[in-house]
Amino acid sequence: MNCRHLLLAVCCLLSLEAQSQDSVMFRRISDEIMLRGTCYENLRVLCKQIGHRLSGSPAAARAVDWGFDALKDAGAEKVWLQPVDVPHWVRGKESLKLRLDPKNGFEEVPMLSLGNAVGTDGKVLEGDIVMVTTFDEFKALKDEEVRDRIIFINHRFPQEMINTFEGYGAAGPYRWMGPNMAAGRKAAGVIIRSISTGIDDAPHTGSLRYADTVKPIPAIAIGNMTADRLEAALKKGIAAKARIQSTARMLGTARSYNVIGEIKGTEYPDQIVLVGGHLDSWDVGEGAHDDGAGCVQSIEVIRTLKALGIRPKRTVRAVLFMNEENGLRGGYAYNDSAVANNEKHILALESDAGGFSPRGIGLAMERPRREFIQSFRHLFLPYGVYDFEQEEGGADISPLQRRGVPVSGLIPDPQRYFDLHHTPNDVFERVNHRELKLGAVAMAQLVYLITQYGLK
Amino acid sequence: MNCRHLLLAVCCLLSLEAQSQDSVMFRRISDEIMLRGTCYENLRVLCKQIGHRLSGSPAAARAVDWGFDALKDAGAEKVWLQPVDVPHWVRGKESLKLRLDPKNGFEEVPMLSLGNAVGTDGKVLEGDIVMVTTFDEFKALKDEEVRDRIIFINHRFPQEMINTFEGYGAAGPYRWMGPNMAAGRKAAGVIIRSISTGIDDAPHTGSLRYADTVKPIPAIAIGNMTADRLEAALKKGIAAKARIQSTARMLGTARSYNVIGEIKGTEYPDQIVLVGGHLDSWDVGEGAHDDGAGCVQSIEVIRTLKALGIRPKRTVRAVLFMNEENGLRGGYAYNDSAVANNEKHILALESDAGGFSPRGIGLAMERPRREFIQSFRHLFLPYGVYDFEQEEGGADISPLQRRGVPVSGLIPDPQRYFDLHHTPNDVFERVNHRELKLGAVAMAQLVYLITQYGLK
Repeated sequence: MNCRHLLLAVCCLLSLEAQSQDSVMFRRISDEIMLRGTCYENLRVLCKQIGHRLSGSPAAARAVDWGFDALKDAGAEKVWLQPVDVPHWVRGKESLKLRLDPKNGFEEVPMLSLGNAVGTDGKVLEGDIVMVTTFDEFKALKDEEVRDRIIFINHRFPQEMINTFEGYGAAGPYRWMGPNMAAGRKAAGVIIRSISTGIDDAPHTGSLRYADTVKPIPAIAIGNMTADRLEAALKKGIAAKARIQSTARMLGTARSYNVIGEIKGTEYPDQIVLVGGHLDSWDVGEGAHDDGAGCVQSIEVIRTLKALGIRPKRTVRAVLFMNEENGLRGGYAYNDSAVANNEKHILALESDAGGFSPRGIGLAMERPRREFIQSFRHLFLPYGVYDFEQEEGGADISPLQRRGVPVSGLIPDPQRYFDLHHTPNDVFERVNHRELKLGAVAMAQLVYLITQYGLK
Repeated sequence: MNCRHLLLAVCCLLSLEAQSQDSVMFRRISDEIMLRGTCYENLRVLCKQIGHRLSGSPAAARAVDWGFDALKDAGAEKVWLQPVDVPHWVRGKESLKLRLDPKNGFEEVPMLSLGNAVGTDGKVLEGDIVMVTTFDEFKALKDEEVRDRIIFINHRFPQEMINTFEGYGAAGPYRWMGPNMAAGRKAAGVIIRSISTGIDDAPHTGSLRYADTVKPIPAIAIGNMTADRLEAALKKGIAAKARIQSTARMLGTARSYNVIGEIKGTEYPDQIVLVGGHLDSWDVGEGAHDDGAGCVQSIEVIRTLKALGIRPKRTVRAVLFMNEENGLRGGYAYNDSAVANNEKHILALESDAGGFSPRGIGLAMERPRREFIQSFRHLFLPYGVYDFEQEEGGADISPLQRRGVPVSGLIPDPQRYFDLHHTPNDVFERVNHRELKLGAVAMAQLVYLITQYGLK
């Protein structure tokens, strides 16, 4: 063995030793969370004592207080509130009645206004229903077929896509953009088939955007079963009608906050590793998977580091973002502050895809960094985390991403998310304790690695 | 390019072409099941119209009829019943009352007798409770500390194990063997902490064995919350007492059946690829995950091949086994028949780990065969199936395995199974339609490959 070989062998051994230490730390992190984790009980409190918490609502304000205390309890060395001005939309009272058969009268069906939609000022808006299944079909309608009609956008969630987030990407624009297109052509209102993998009748809310140039019109979602019935009636040539009544309205802007907790790094305190989720939710259900899960998992990362006595070399910051659902103002405010304070984020990791068993970690960053994280794949594999190929981050960290910050997103099993997302069924009982904790394990493990090794 | 290189290139191209065809067929199988699959509706009928179906019960007999019809409807070319004589155990009436505080009286708590356990002939069995947490602790007890006492086996499910089936393997013996050990030392009865990952109070039944040399004693399971309370009382030094009352008894043997459906292979009809689950369940809940899921997925494999017009080169046989839970008689009867008829099974695949999102396929077979299947891993990856390293089959196919038949087991996500397993909560509502179907996709894909290529 010559000197170079000896050096190589020593390097090899040192690297193996480091890997073995990381593997031991991964196990300690996992044991700590699976045996003594508090994220599930935290989620119970958030869901059951506060409940849903749309931006600007009194519940959202209570959630901010809760988040502050929870981060303190977890052992964050510094916890603070970062002001965010958020849109304050209220659903008010709302109903949809359909006449699916001229022989019968109108019947009330389950519905939810889309978020940020206008209402009818409480008056009854009655109109004939015209169905389209695609944007092309809508464009092919003559103006007189759209004007004053209620457009039923009957686009189905593509169930054949194994990654339901791809399906959401494909079907989602019918919710985000469809109402605006109909408004631009003077339709009276819009009913959409919910963006839903569910085989039930739960309506799914979610945000829409009106362009400044159009006069907003009411836009509501119905569940898949009601949509099936409406579709069947229209296909039979029945002249179906709808009566929409809603007091939904935008109240203006309210002061709210991102909640931030931090453990200062011992060697490179200026390098920040961010882990987060969003604290606001839609105003139905309990925002359990979306995104109570991401919040309590982020808090668990802080708690775990403290509980294990890990002093991270780099700063770890847990951020509970406000207003992901209908404005993303929290994400922008955080980024603005980071710019103003010249903060250096070396990685931002978000969990906002549900509290389901983790399968992977998305990596949206330059190739060498992605490959560096991928080189630890074997350490994650015993924890069921195998997929490091997706280039996903999260909505709240997308403003950071656009400035070049490497971002990352927890990838849980996606099969159930769009059954529950934005519905009254997104409640604590639909979250499994072990799945939720295992997601926190993967997040804490990644945060540990990056605080330890950096991400050059 | 010389001749050899040319030959190599042609072989390469042919192989790529085959892989690409397989990839197309994988997609067709997936689309067929995700868009038009019937397994979820089949499971609804099995769970809601028949319900739980312990071996020997009238419901099990109805399940046999249902299975026969379902396999016919799926398009099996031949469907038959294979006689199996099964133990017929009945739970009868049962209750457990605990006195956790001498100041208070006895209170009734949720409980389930373990399967195959004896009862008290309806009389009250009252006794002092002695707690042990491990076999070693039990062995260390003096004989007079065991005799006539009710032994509380308080062994916790190891929540830190990520693969809960490993946890079940570690904790399960306390249920299977614990009561027999206590009976051998003249205890009066046994109470076990359920083999459960649940953080609720659901008791989990499951089978036990008494040796022929011991006089059987009653053995019951309590949920984790009751077990926590009992543990706390005993740790405080309280002289806790139990009153067990049960009419559980073994009635003898009943005639039942495995249900088998088949599509004959076009080129190698004598080579059988088996896919199966078990039709019986415990007598609580609806046997939805355990193992209604495996049954309807196996039926879905047959339906999918027919619906896609695939004529398999080798014979595909779906088997709904009877009596996995408390005797495995169906598995033995099937194997005996296979031996008697000199049948050649080239692969047996079982789904008996729940209708959750698939993560892998266990391969218990000789290395070259395992490596052959592993060589298709990349085809499965887009469907979330990545783990081909575990050497798992299934209980019903274990008699085949012992004769050298290559066996395989679907590996779904394991986080939720032992919350529900053998409890009243294992009901249809706890199965997600997409997860169930995705499991069937992986099974149909593997079956397709092996019918196409064999498994030498």
